[in-house]
Amino acid sequence: MARHSLRGELVEAAFEQFHAHGFNGAGVKDITDAAGAPKGSFYNHFPSKEALAVVALERYGSTLRLADLKDSSVDPLTRLRRHFEFLRDGQLDQRFLRGCLFGDFANEISDHSEIIREAIRQGFAYWAECLTCAVADAQTAGQVSAGQDAETLAAFLLNAWEGTLISSRTERSAKAFKPFFDTVFGVLLR
Amino acid sequence: MARHSLRGELVEAAFEQFHAHGFNGAGVKDITDAAGAPKGSFYNHFPSKEALAVVALERYGSTLRLADLKDSSVDPLTRLRRHFEFLRDGQLDQRFLRGCLFGDFANEISDHSEIIREAIRQGFAYWAECLTCAVADAQTAGQVSAGQDAETLAAFLLNAWEGTLISSRTERSAKAFKPFFDTVFGVLLR
Repeated sequence: MARHSLRGELVEAAFEQFHAHGFNGAGVKDITDAAGAPKGSFYNHFPSKEALAVVALERYGSTLRLADLKDSSVDPLTRLRRHFEFLRDGQLDQRFLRGCLFGDFANEISDHSEIIREAIRQGFAYWAECLTCAVADAQTAGQVSAGQDAETLAAFLLNAWEGTLISSRTERSAKAFKPFFDTVFGVLLR
Repeated sequence: MARHSLRGELVEAAFEQFHAHGFNGAGVKDITDAAGAPKGSFYNHFPSKEALAVVALERYGSTLRLADLKDSSVDPLTRLRRHFEFLRDGQLDQRFLRGCLFGDFANEISDHSEIIREAIRQGFAYWAECLTCAVADAQTAGQVSAGQDAETLAAFLLNAWEGTLISSRTERSAKAFKPFFDTVFGVLLR
């Protein structure tokens, strides 16, 4: 099982260290120490810290329950609300620390690493595609005005969410989520 | 003039280095080198890199033309549109690099430095206050529905903007601004 391989342990450790300390804040030695591995073993598994960051970003994407946004057995507006409530509750559980690894790395390192920028771009693109599916289904169901382009509105929701996480980290209060939920579910998605 | 003092040179250099490379990516030596100053001179002027980061954040806030949002001689919706167009044009001029120093530091370092987190919190609070003024004036003028709380809507606009910058850095395309302008000025502010 990958989880018990050294490579798997390095990925898990990197995911934690990058998310907690950022790309520059988490060194290769921090990651190997956290995985209980000798530093020299790192390059047997990954050509660079950047390459491991790409795998950590993919690992992060898999935690977001994006497939639920396409689950046509659930009312589309309920899918959207549950999705953002799930993400909000995760941030509350983390006491407002960490935020979104895509957004963290986009701000910290995407100007300096083309492979990391591309991994974030792909992660956001799939997230936006899943949101677009739910928004379009809500429009078809007559729950949301069809006057807005579903893809544009979905991209806007994703941006607004990423900014909300920034606000939650500086405010460290559940109140930071109020503008998002009030405006998205009270004004935009209706 | 402060601009020609060594302290002023260090602030300018830090502003550039932090914005280009992040908090952890810009070392004290990078900053003193960029200012043409010996590394040892740093601690004559600042007790820590964190303390200089706080001054750089204040310097960043002063570039945002926030007072224009309160200029009652200009139509309020025009103030809001010009504000975000000014910020967008700045990001286009920078070829989608850098983003917002508040958002960059919020994602990278606010979990680890209380004084930096507080400086960002204050920066965002003043920005939100200026946006609230323009939104409330637009409501009074009948340009924007009074059904939404001005402060909540202003906080949402600021979050959506911060997330839009994240998207613009990963997309590196002017198209990244379309969801913001279409949704804010086509749907929310009307």
